[in-house]
Amino acid sequence: MGLLTGGRGVRVTRRSFLKRLGGAGSGLVLLGAGGRTWPGEPTPSDTFQAAQETSFPPGKDPNSLIQHSALTFETRREAFGTSGIVPYERLFVRNNLPTPDPVFVADRDAWTLDVEGVARPGVLTIAELKALDVVTVATVLQCSGNGRAFFPHETSGSQWGVGAAGCVIWSGVPVRAVAEALGGVSDGVRFVTATGGEPLPDGIARDDVVVERSIPLEKGLEDAFLAWEMNGGPLPLVHGGPLRLVAPGYFGINQVKYVSRLAFTSTESSAGVMRTGYRVRPIGESGDPSQPSMWEMSVKSWINHPSGDRPRQAGQLVVDGVALGGMRGVRRVELSVDGGRSWQNAPLIGPDLGSYAWRHFAVPVTLERGTHTLASRAVDDAGNVQPADRMENHRGYANTSWRDHAVTVSVV
Amino acid sequence: MGLLTGGRGVRVTRRSFLKRLGGAGSGLVLLGAGGRTWPGEPTPSDTFQAAQETSFPPGKDPNSLIQHSALTFETRREAFGTSGIVPYERLFVRNNLPTPDPVFVADRDAWTLDVEGVARPGVLTIAELKALDVVTVATVLQCSGNGRAFFPHETSGSQWGVGAAGCVIWSGVPVRAVAEALGGVSDGVRFVTATGGEPLPDGIARDDVVVERSIPLEKGLEDAFLAWEMNGGPLPLVHGGPLRLVAPGYFGINQVKYVSRLAFTSTESSAGVMRTGYRVRPIGESGDPSQPSMWEMSVKSWINHPSGDRPRQAGQLVVDGVALGGMRGVRRVELSVDGGRSWQNAPLIGPDLGSYAWRHFAVPVTLERGTHTLASRAVDDAGNVQPADRMENHRGYANTSWRDHAVTVSVV
Repeated sequence: MGLLTGGRGVRVTRRSFLKRLGGAGSGLVLLGAGGRTWPGEPTPSDTFQAAQETSFPPGKDPNSLIQHSALTFETRREAFGTSGIVPYERLFVRNNLPTPDPVFVADRDAWTLDVEGVARPGVLTIAELKALDVVTVATVLQCSGNGRAFFPHETSGSQWGVGAAGCVIWSGVPVRAVAEALGGVSDGVRFVTATGGEPLPDGIARDDVVVERSIPLEKGLEDAFLAWEMNGGPLPLVHGGPLRLVAPGYFGINQVKYVSRLAFTSTESSAGVMRTGYRVRPIGESGDPSQPSMWEMSVKSWINHPSGDRPRQAGQLVVDGVALGGMRGVRRVELSVDGGRSWQNAPLIGPDLGSYAWRHFAVPVTLERGTHTLASRAVDDAGNVQPADRMENHRGYANTSWRDHAVTVSVV
Repeated sequence: MGLLTGGRGVRVTRRSFLKRLGGAGSGLVLLGAGGRTWPGEPTPSDTFQAAQETSFPPGKDPNSLIQHSALTFETRREAFGTSGIVPYERLFVRNNLPTPDPVFVADRDAWTLDVEGVARPGVLTIAELKALDVVTVATVLQCSGNGRAFFPHETSGSQWGVGAAGCVIWSGVPVRAVAEALGGVSDGVRFVTATGGEPLPDGIARDDVVVERSIPLEKGLEDAFLAWEMNGGPLPLVHGGPLRLVAPGYFGINQVKYVSRLAFTSTESSAGVMRTGYRVRPIGESGDPSQPSMWEMSVKSWINHPSGDRPRQAGQLVVDGVALGGMRGVRRVELSVDGGRSWQNAPLIGPDLGSYAWRHFAVPVTLERGTHTLASRAVDDAGNVQPADRMENHRGYANTSWRDHAVTVSVV
């Protein structure tokens, strides 16, 4: 993975996008096969590499984020608010490839999407997608490895605590509307496969590095969409702008960024992140297409305040946190202030942004001097209860254990 | 108003806040009566005046905002998204006094609120307020003068089009919880009066400049709250941080920023913005306490896209906009593409953030070549229909006319 995480020496090679930008009359000047710039601007290799060397993406709040690597940033537990959404400044970042050059969002409406596996395959610009329809949906965005730090065995990948997750509001066009506009899905299709348009490093097989994921056709046509807006503004580059697939209720890897191709396919993608990566497998075993893929999220909650990072004064305080149902809404949340021996109801607060969003819970409690272990436990709309224990697996995926997510608070 | 809008020569004089900050052990160094700074930082007068000279508040997006004066910024019609909320970068700004020095948000939890008109009057810090309770509510924030530009008579004040409005999600503590924590409201109380803690210019009577508003006690105890969070982050300085009163469904002037005093009072405030300002009065008449005060908002909607700013291609496009009920939710919205001769249903999209929030509507329409007048008309939960005509009044307040807010689109 060393070649992919450093970001240096990666050249922009996505010629088709460059051709489109030039053809869209956007005033870009093409500088040979691999380069393009605005008149008077630095050359692309300068700007691209400079961007990769910046520690925090533009506008991200260093005080709210924990940096795990050049490309991974986790939201601190205490940096979550209670507003339902996580603003850009505080939202976690996890990219499998270096963030593309800002030229990707220089002319958003001119970005093109190749659509295959429909009656009339073709190319649609974002401007054309916007003319079809629009939906607005709030969803939890969560990395498959969120909570990996709590696994006792040695796991590779970012050691996320609770903050590789956020809830945001997206706007975009339903995948269904795109398929219908092009005459409907071809016979034999079973999956919707989205391909990220990031430039790929040289010298490595495409399938080993490309971000390409398949989701079941039923899910794609039910409520997946292609988003161009996040939290009321244009979808930021670092979060997949100008165009990202959103499969509500699914783990983050399925929310493919910089989508340049949407294919209705009869088989799952052969890309590494689909075929062997992001599979739930026993510790020590290799990834295999027969293992469960990281699709649907399930019920989970955790406490954000108090975070346990500092001693608190004895007396009343408000305990708050978040609860998500994954593919369902949240029915209720319980709070324990004694490590799980007893539980009380923790009322949900704020607007209900829909079943794919998370809910905040908040409850005033009085804590005496001493050490207290606070835990939360959510129940989804189908009655599924957040478990006490994690599901052990090689990569440390899908940790929903309430015990792992508990906080220990020192009260003085 | 010249003395108030320029911002130069205004000295920080709120000594009590400075004393509190010093007393809170925050490391601030007090430099005589009127100045304070961090060791090694520029002197306050430097930093404060520099801030006032900056055209756009930090982080605001110049491309999304129309600047009307040094302190007023309107969201462009086409800069509204469809996500339900307006992010900080795009949210309008309208302050009656210069934005305070950033020292106001240097130690948010240490900010103090004087509470009067309760059984046990006293001072509470934000940290203490946070220990009481928390609510999360989405509300429309709208200046009384939004839509003033459409009045035909000459009006003083910012010539707002549609964009002196936004919808945001707040978190804070209910006014009711504050009153209860201090033993309840005193006898004879009829209003909740909030006072802004901004520094006041020298040489002008306090009542003439202070931002102090009263709302009915019933409203205050029903659902008003003191907010410290907006859209998932700490309440930004320019929007009233660290503490702002939010009276859901009321016009912006009542959402007092930098609240330093919350008084349960038997009479309305004598401040100019309450006694004679923000009153609905016949054209040419002076303001008077007997006239209606700018409290409750009523049903209104407008189209954001297409904005009419440029010609559009013939064919299908998606028309979208926002609708608010003011004190109630939105039941439905209708769209006309022929200047109001005929109407069709415009479906609401996205999550319902509650009755004080706005809703987006969106409807794909096909437009032939020519000039088209597009209008929207909302109906609130009580069946009140947005009117065709504005209510004429001296200051150009409360414009809800669907005719005034229509857009003319050239289709080529």
